[in-house]
Amino acid sequence: MREFATVILAAGKGTRMKSGLHKVLHPIAGRPMIDHLMASAAQLGPARTVVVVGSGRDQLESALADRAETCLQEPQLGTGHAVQQAQDGLNGFDGDVLILYGDVPFVRAETMRAMLDRLHADDAPAVVVLGFEPADTLQYGRVIADADGRIEKMVEHKDATEAERACRLCNSGLMAARAADMFDLLARVGNDNSQGEYYLVDVVNVAREDGRHSAVVVTDQPDEVTGINSRAELARAEAQWQGVKREEAMAAGASLRAPETVFFSYDTQIGRDVTIEPNVVFGPGVSVADGATIRAFSHIEGASIGPGCEVGPYARLRPGAVMEKGSKVGNFVEMKKAVLGEGAKANHLTYLGDAEVGAGANIGAGTITCNYDGYFKHKTVIGPRAFIGSNSALIAPVRIGADAIVAAGSAVSRDVDDGELRMVRAEQLVKPGWADRFHDTMKKKKAGEDK
Amino acid sequence: MREFATVILAAGKGTRMKSGLHKVLHPIAGRPMIDHLMASAAQLGPARTVVVVGSGRDQLESALADRAETCLQEPQLGTGHAVQQAQDGLNGFDGDVLILYGDVPFVRAETMRAMLDRLHADDAPAVVVLGFEPADTLQYGRVIADADGRIEKMVEHKDATEAERACRLCNSGLMAARAADMFDLLARVGNDNSQGEYYLVDVVNVAREDGRHSAVVVTDQPDEVTGINSRAELARAEAQWQGVKREEAMAAGASLRAPETVFFSYDTQIGRDVTIEPNVVFGPGVSVADGATIRAFSHIEGASIGPGCEVGPYARLRPGAVMEKGSKVGNFVEMKKAVLGEGAKANHLTYLGDAEVGAGANIGAGTITCNYDGYFKHKTVIGPRAFIGSNSALIAPVRIGADAIVAAGSAVSRDVDDGELRMVRAEQLVKPGWADRFHDTMKKKKAGEDK
Amino acid sequence: MREFATVILAAGKGTRMKSGLHKVLHPIAGRPMIDHLMASAAQLGPARTVVVVGSGRDQLESALADRAETCLQEPQLGTGHAVQQAQDGLNGFDGDVLILYGDVPFVRAETMRAMLDRLHADDAPAVVVLGFEPADTLQYGRVIADADGRIEKMVEHKDATEAERACRLCNSGLMAARAADMFDLLARVGNDNSQGEYYLVDVVNVAREDGRHSAVVVTDQPDEVTGINSRAELARAEAQWQGVKREEAMAAGASLRAPETVFFSYDTQIGRDVTIEPNVVFGPGVSVADGATIRAFSHIEGASIGPGCEVGPYARLRPGAVMEKGSKVGNFVEMKKAVLGEGAKANHLTYLGDAEVGAGANIGAGTITCNYDGYFKHKTVIGPRAFIGSNSALIAPVRIGADAIVAAGSAVSRDVDDGELRMVRAEQLVKPGWADRFHDTMKKKKAGEDK
Repeated sequence: MREFATVILAAGKGTRMKSGLHKVLHPIAGRPMIDHLMASAAQLGPARTVVVVGSGRDQLESALADRAETCLQEPQLGTGHAVQQAQDGLNGFDGDVLILYGDVPFVRAETMRAMLDRLHADDAPAVVVLGFEPADTLQYGRVIADADGRIEKMVEHKDATEAERACRLCNSGLMAARAADMFDLLARVGNDNSQGEYYLVDVVNVAREDGRHSAVVVTDQPDEVTGINSRAELARAEAQWQGVKREEAMAAGASLRAPETVFFSYDTQIGRDVTIEPNVVFGPGVSVADGATIRAFSHIEGASIGPGCEVGPYARLRPGAVMEKGSKVGNFVEMKKAVLGEGAKANHLTYLGDAEVGAGANIGAGTITCNYDGYFKHKTVIGPRAFIGSNSALIAPVRIGADAIVAAGSAVSRDVDDGELRMVRAEQLVKPGWADRFHDTMKKKKAGEDK
Repeated sequence: MREFATVILAAGKGTRMKSGLHKVLHPIAGRPMIDHLMASAAQLGPARTVVVVGSGRDQLESALADRAETCLQEPQLGTGHAVQQAQDGLNGFDGDVLILYGDVPFVRAETMRAMLDRLHADDAPAVVVLGFEPADTLQYGRVIADADGRIEKMVEHKDATEAERACRLCNSGLMAARAADMFDLLARVGNDNSQGEYYLVDVVNVAREDGRHSAVVVTDQPDEVTGINSRAELARAEAQWQGVKREEAMAAGASLRAPETVFFSYDTQIGRDVTIEPNVVFGPGVSVADGATIRAFSHIEGASIGPGCEVGPYARLRPGAVMEKGSKVGNFVEMKKAVLGEGAKANHLTYLGDAEVGAGANIGAGTITCNYDGYFKHKTVIGPRAFIGSNSALIAPVRIGADAIVAAGSAVSRDVDDGELRMVRAEQLVKPGWADRFHDTMKKKKAGEDK
Repeated sequence: MREFATVILAAGKGTRMKSGLHKVLHPIAGRPMIDHLMASAAQLGPARTVVVVGSGRDQLESALADRAETCLQEPQLGTGHAVQQAQDGLNGFDGDVLILYGDVPFVRAETMRAMLDRLHADDAPAVVVLGFEPADTLQYGRVIADADGRIEKMVEHKDATEAERACRLCNSGLMAARAADMFDLLARVGNDNSQGEYYLVDVVNVAREDGRHSAVVVTDQPDEVTGINSRAELARAEAQWQGVKREEAMAAGASLRAPETVFFSYDTQIGRDVTIEPNVVFGPGVSVADGATIRAFSHIEGASIGPGCEVGPYARLRPGAVMEKGSKVGNFVEMKKAVLGEGAKANHLTYLGDAEVGAGANIGAGTITCNYDGYFKHKTVIGPRAFIGSNSALIAPVRIGADAIVAAGSAVSRDVDDGELRMVRAEQLVKPGWADRFHDTMKKKKAGEDK
């Protein structure tokens, strides 16, 4: 493969999305769709990446940061015109260019490579087009080609003869060419059509006028060139992605009792003999080690779950949650920037934020780490084998020693030494008969109101 | 359109539902099925609504209250007999009557209007029948009509010839006629059939005997006349309704990562650029403003969610919950009759009931508003920018001032002034080495028991 | 039916499961797949059950305990060889044997009975084979039989002629024979094939050499012989099982708003007029009485839910949870080994473990029963009509009397008498203006850090 650059078209308005967010930044599996595409291209190591932007330029530039050059297309006069705008960004680059679309995010690296390889086959086509055979060919332009993939004709559906329409090979819009060829050909593409636009596909015709042929590479997975133009199509793309990922997780040795209710992120890592109950949502940045169990209704982001851990039901692990081997987080428990040591447990109704919990510690139901004073976050450190009684508040910064015990209901604001008992509890005020008298009074009052 | 009355048949026993609840009161999308039907009819402004009831009369009368007249059909001698019972309820009304079925809830207003309009077309049919073409015609009576919709014959499936069965146009049972015509025709319908019942459809035959023709109006959405006779059919109707609503929400600019896991109510209002994560349930009475995010596992009823708010995961908003602009309700938080001011936050494990929280206030993890004394509910008012420390109990009625701070773990039973610190906390009782001795004792005891 | 024994083959390695857990122990609907099979067979009362094991023997023996004999197949030389290993376990048993497969768990008792009955039909076949007609016959061996089910030929797909391949009747592998016949025939089966294995199906051929015929019984539910070889197939089997169970629950009078989101266990019992909202997971051992409502996101295991109870949303009932008539468990509430008396309520953010709650008691939000001291579990007993104020900790062992009141925020460590008020609360420490000064200081500090 020669050196190549990707040119990603992303200047469309995406009006059907009805969104203030740029279309190509809408996420699938927790990642903006353009990032899926760039990640695939990155496997081939492009020398440059140029994104052609229009409306929403600021959003895109901020999202892409230094990962791509951006070039502005303004006004927007068609796909050919869009690619032309990339010329400045390429800044004299003389390798190949691969034309991609920000809203066609699932093109595989191997397909991109096949296009670039075809460009340098012995017959040296001027242009390589990616063709696909959709279930429903309606609306797509057709690629009329011979058995070697040499293109005889590109024809729009509306201009096609019956015989041409019977051809199932359609134009995906993706294209590869040498940079010099591409811009030379584009310079000669006209806009003499009903829309007054410059169409990228016309470079094939201009090349033919030069006596040069073009070639088609056909993907055997037509889904990879599916474009996303609405939120419904976004949801379908998500569903398709999730379906593939779920099958992969099961094939690798995870049990999903109801796969259709488990939602992964693009980077979720799941080990072997992991059990995932129904209704689990994984955000980005999660790894689950072998033998762990994720129970129903868990929501997990940016977390590392060690071997044999038990999570949930109703566990919320937020970024920075680290569960060490065999530890356990139960129902209605939230962890954030917190480490739960080996075999430690936080089983019920607990918030662990900015905390370190030692191995074998037991965090009672209703424990809250008070990590925020309204201005700054502070840390709670709990020693190994410590026992935090239920309904306790640990007011950070605070340190609870090894083997220490905090009595139930305590608000602990000062460090507790190793092996110490800390109890913060008022006297038991006993008022015999008071409740009986209260009930009498209130029942009368209630009866009065009900009249 | 002339003045019209709806007659809704709802006297069936609904035995296949196996329910103590009247069939037409079973909810779809959070609303009794008969209410869906009445809401559609209401768009056309019926002069009167008469519901023919049988078993379960009390339930229906109580549910309908003053929204409809009810007439009793007892015994139940067929659909024709049922409509006859409505005559008293119509009390001399001389406009049109439109016959509907309480268990066929999704007939659209435009279909009803088309039926009533057809009744007053130039050819002035005696009766207008609603026809439909189901995917599977089995069991339905057929409507044999000419190209102008003039009915030649109505025939039961079992009585139909092969040629007639090949006709795909079926009788939905819905009907329109002038009131005078309807009751005149019905009076002459007999019950000379195997069931000994008076069939409504026979009015078409009686009219023909008078030399008058009837007409068919055909719906292009056969699903709208689907009847519901079992809980499985109820679930399918719900699924169908949800499917339509989800598509609408997405088309209007909401992102549903997994649309099939989001459940709307009949009146849910969703703004633009709203993100809804998987597994969200909306009860009745919810509006979500532009730019809000509803995270996974949220359950929302009777709530108003302002622009840019963040809800969940695991947020439960109950009736009367009002989230103002940019406010945030996090995991394991319940709100009921409570207002969360602009930018205020209640992020974790909190119950806010009968409360007003000022703008910018921060409600710490584990905060509980103690709003109930066993007899009456009381109110908690929290000022702007107040900071409620974690694990606090606010014992209503109580007022926390602006910028005030409640220390973590406090049970606050008296008002806190603006800018005041309130701390309710016992002394830290320190017992060095106590825990170590406790562990020794208990380990021995445990070892003894394990023997 | 004569006395019979089941021989269950479970020696396969199950490598496609990629699991440390034996394949036949993977659960479907909360029960190991082999247990589904054994439960069906148990309806017919087998005299003996022999399971042929290979790798993972220890796991299987431990799981089966005294419910079956196990025989080791080592090395594994084919299905015929596997059945031969059962001979010792059968220990001279001279009734019929029914050959089943641990990874084909959903064969119905009536199908097993049909096979055993066929064995003793007048024509007395030597062997009875269970045949099925799958949607896709590819890969299966064919059963060529006459109209009376007398087998003419068993042929592997690869050896079949075009005409034979057109036959849709396939061999499930299940078989019945007299024990004496089975082992006599098996002793003469050879391994002269490409795999060098002893195939069970060859007993049919050996019998024919003896001049004896075999017969096929055909199931009309081909799904019952579906084998499970991967986690994806396991998930599909679970989905199929759930689909059937959901329809049954609805037919029996339960409303499932979104049936596809409700997950039952093999033994879940659901009453009439039970409403189940979306996203509910039932573990084993649950019964739900008439008229109860299970709201969304509830997770229920080993629990008894009485008539008219309300559960959830977000209720977690663990083993030993008993809700008596009309009691109510609300959001973010966990119950374990706890009884909630008639009409009692625990509506929010509560943990009830090892507890008895009397009729009509009210458990305030944020109440925690502190049942664990790090070594032992202790019990909390709450009397009828008691009122537990919010955010209280009940430190077990402890008894709260009838009609007693515990003030909000109390940590109760000593018994409370009937009609008594118990309050455990420190003084309200009031620091006017302190918060204002704190805000000033912190804002300056924050501003300094932000520089």
